[in-house]
Amino acid sequence: MPQGKPAVVPDDGLTTRQRRGRPLLLVHTGPGKGKSTAAFGLALRAWNQGWPVGVFQFVKSAKWRVGEERALKVLGESGEGGTVAWHKMGEGWSWIKKSGTEADHAADAREGWAQIRRDLAAETYRLYVLDEFTYPLKWGWIDVGEVVDTLAGRPGNQHVVITGREAPPALLEVADLITEMTKVRHPMDTGQKGQKGIEW
Amino acid sequence: MPQGKPAVVPDDGLTTRQRRGRPLLLVHTGPGKGKSTAAFGLALRAWNQGWPVGVFQFVKSAKWRVGEERALKVLGESGEGGTVAWHKMGEGWSWIKKSGTEADHAADAREGWAQIRRDLAAETYRLYVLDEFTYPLKWGWIDVGEVVDTLAGRPGNQHVVITGREAPPALLEVADLITEMTKVRHPMDTGQKGQKGIEW
Repeated sequence: MPQGKPAVVPDDGLTTRQRRGRPLLLVHTGPGKGKSTAAFGLALRAWNQGWPVGVFQFVKSAKWRVGEERALKVLGESGEGGTVAWHKMGEGWSWIKKSGTEADHAADAREGWAQIRRDLAAETYRLYVLDEFTYPLKWGWIDVGEVVDTLAGRPGNQHVVITGREAPPALLEVADLITEMTKVRHPMDTGQKGQKGIEW
Repeated sequence: MPQGKPAVVPDDGLTTRQRRGRPLLLVHTGPGKGKSTAAFGLALRAWNQGWPVGVFQFVKSAKWRVGEERALKVLGESGEGGTVAWHKMGEGWSWIKKSGTEADHAADAREGWAQIRRDLAAETYRLYVLDEFTYPLKWGWIDVGEVVDTLAGRPGNQHVVITGREAPPALLEVADLITEMTKVRHPMDTGQKGQKGIEW
């Protein structure tokens, strides 16, 4: 609920308009729900502005994000807002189901990151959703320093939102906006399993 | 990132299937970003399931939610998923702009709540997004006890997500899922104003 009044006005020689246009790196982290859901909600705003949106799904199970994927594809094809490109790392690949070896998964993740680098260099999208991207960083599959350098040096006006638990400190260091989602109570605490329409 | 394994299996005589189908009350609260954005992300999943979705926007400015509103309307009219009904309390009304008196705003909010009660009784929707609904509760415009009783006694299988800061304790008491969004860093801290595609 920002009130439109920044806490301080920086002495950086930029106009308000220039500061408004600054490309942002957003991180949604923490153990609570809503990290990815909020990122896909953000994609609705980007779509509404007519921006090309690129989703890169570093995710654990094929069932995940089916709702978001279908919704964003329908929006992208509606001809009303921006376009949506949806990339799944190693299509059908699952961390839970243990298909493939860890080396395969690491290679898939690196391939996804290589694509992101190419797209950032080419300014393919205006908003990038790197969903669950903290995990390959945490596991050392992708080098955090390289990610930080690439993001810091990205050209033009490209916004990036990264989701996932335990975002590495070096990534948080360069983020413009960090939101931590904290679990206060979850139905699974009282024995309820996830349900369609809510969890996926 | 629930792993599909509840922490405990309750001795409530219900099958997993029955527990899966339990109607949920979700609350997104706290001072951080993403409370409403995550609720609208959830609406994408509901839409994908073909559920009728009702949004009730208790919100401060006409510019807010324009992206989400347009996206959900396009989805609702696509004929691919569920329907979407979007209600704005006192259309065009703004808490920031001080149009109307406080009495008018309170009356608008109560009117919105009366509509929600009617819809819950009639089982009009499968997912209700009560956006920024904590504020009229906090300000005493709508009685928290009545809201809690109405939600606790709602018929059928209707999910409700309520967003906003400072959710009243009595509401949290009956919530199935509570996520607190905490602000770790925000561009406004360093003097950057909100920008289109990100804040709205």
